[in-house]
Amino acid sequence: MADQLRRITLARRPSGDPVPEDFALETGDLPNPGAGEVLVAVEHFSLDPYMRGRMDDARSYADPVPIGGTMTAQGVGRVVASNADGLSEGDRVTGMTGWASHAVLKASEARRIDDGVPPTSVLGVLGMPGFTGWYGLNDLGRPKAGETLVVAAATGPVGSMVGQLAKAAGLRTVAIAGGADKCALARDAFGFDAAIDHRAHDDARSLRAAIAEAAPDGVDIYFENVGGKVLEAVVPLMNTFGRIPVCGMVAWYGGVEESEDRLPMLWRSVLVKRMSVSGFIIADHWDRFDAFLSDVAPRVAKGEIDWREDVAEGLDHAPETFIRMLKGGNTGKQIMKI
Amino acid sequence: MADQLRRITLARRPSGDPVPEDFALETGDLPNPGAGEVLVAVEHFSLDPYMRGRMDDARSYADPVPIGGTMTAQGVGRVVASNADGLSEGDRVTGMTGWASHAVLKASEARRIDDGVPPTSVLGVLGMPGFTGWYGLNDLGRPKAGETLVVAAATGPVGSMVGQLAKAAGLRTVAIAGGADKCALARDAFGFDAAIDHRAHDDARSLRAAIAEAAPDGVDIYFENVGGKVLEAVVPLMNTFGRIPVCGMVAWYGGVEESEDRLPMLWRSVLVKRMSVSGFIIADHWDRFDAFLSDVAPRVAKGEIDWREDVAEGLDHAPETFIRMLKGGNTGKQIMKI
Repeated sequence: MADQLRRITLARRPSGDPVPEDFALETGDLPNPGAGEVLVAVEHFSLDPYMRGRMDDARSYADPVPIGGTMTAQGVGRVVASNADGLSEGDRVTGMTGWASHAVLKASEARRIDDGVPPTSVLGVLGMPGFTGWYGLNDLGRPKAGETLVVAAATGPVGSMVGQLAKAAGLRTVAIAGGADKCALARDAFGFDAAIDHRAHDDARSLRAAIAEAAPDGVDIYFENVGGKVLEAVVPLMNTFGRIPVCGMVAWYGGVEESEDRLPMLWRSVLVKRMSVSGFIIADHWDRFDAFLSDVAPRVAKGEIDWREDVAEGLDHAPETFIRMLKGGNTGKQIMKI
Repeated sequence: MADQLRRITLARRPSGDPVPEDFALETGDLPNPGAGEVLVAVEHFSLDPYMRGRMDDARSYADPVPIGGTMTAQGVGRVVASNADGLSEGDRVTGMTGWASHAVLKASEARRIDDGVPPTSVLGVLGMPGFTGWYGLNDLGRPKAGETLVVAAATGPVGSMVGQLAKAAGLRTVAIAGGADKCALARDAFGFDAAIDHRAHDDARSLRAAIAEAAPDGVDIYFENVGGKVLEAVVPLMNTFGRIPVCGMVAWYGGVEESEDRLPMLWRSVLVKRMSVSGFIIADHWDRFDAFLSDVAPRVAKGEIDWREDVAEGLDHAPETFIRMLKGGNTGKQIMKI
């Protein structure tokens, strides 16, 4: 057992945007799996915007990562020691490994991955991000053919799922993305009818004009994962009976830009346009995960639903990769390879 | 035909809070009912906060009142001339008469009122305001026994309906009202478990502390009809999976108080607490009106649901009464008697 456990811990709580000093790389002995547990050698783990929220000590839907605790993440790896029925050495599994080279998982919380499935796909298109897009669009967005959808972070694993599902359901789809390359990807790979580079628009008013041009019949569904300037731009364009599923607000995770009070503007739209705004956390809806896989996995296998990954290497590069991702520096699902 | 038509028109669009000069009293000849129409001598008409919105020229769910047009209102009166099958002179009917002594109504848009029903009740507890409270609470608030509800303008026709229905459904009910007298009325007549005088609290933080004390288990349903300081106070107290039906925001009809940007605060709660915010306009839901009457009219007849009216006299006093109502100067459903 020359192997050592290496893991990234939370060294201190960030003030605003995270910086490398907020994290620490720690090493130690490999843990031993207890009864009903397995030791997993992590091959890949996922980086997601929601992890920024776990770094704060605020009341939220999940407990914060404690200072000195391993950063939370879903990972994929091979079982290297098993103390559980039904899982053997060499099995590939996924579970909440954290940002770590190895993790002990309860067998009940590890899901085996079949050989035919690309291992990293369970972190993205067929995992929590894809499920988030599928659930929020279908159950809360209630898409109808002929309507118009807007989604930001449109080349990410949530946004690209939302856009492709909506397009297949007969909606006009408008992508918001950062930079010309991502806009091209949104149109070419993910089939968006229009793509708008938010970096080309300094303020909400300018961005709104661009969205209005791309959505001449108004916006029926705004799938919300960013908040900030995009939200401010879209709200006045919403149609009567519009729906806003809310699964994230990455623009506000590190703080809030200066602005006048935008709450009355939103509230007026909610009333006048009879809008539905629905916050959701995908972890509440695992009972729908089988339905998601039944619907989406065959479409992914047939190539009808495309996805992109951005794979960075080396556990010690996870903090800087995470920081870069929060600023939109990745293209596609951000994954760390150990 | 010594009678003249008298009506209150919109003289100009208000800037902020309406003032008497925004209205005009005009007189003219009585109109003649065309085929399928009746002429109604109005006995009472309703004043409601939504009318403030109709005075603006903004895009909204209903067309604005044009300059020189009669102010919109539901009224009750007697048919004095009929040119329609099924309605005769002397019948009491309700319909959209406007702020006027007489109105021509299509028979299809006039509803006959049976003799046993108190005429003004169709403007309040058994009319649009009561229906608004019933629909918003049941269909969007989805009340469950043991939960806690907060509603503002709690002695008004919407708030008092919401509070009594929620109490009967086994919820803890918290009233927000303006002044000690209304708070006493909320508790004594409408059965609220607690009543908070918003005038005793200068800012949202102070009001929030009072609501928190009255709602020790948090707030599951905030029935929104005021916006402003009350909304800001309640949002952080909302429980996970809380619901906010939004039917009005009277605090913001005349303008917005100074504040920092409260949108991120709301948005964070929507996400973290998986809240549902649902704007609604009761006019979209007339298909549920019979269900409302079947449920509520017998309970009103039995005295299980109480209501209060504030009847002012004289068409020419309608503007000042309306202005007073927008500032909370009335107690119970505001009605004008001609």
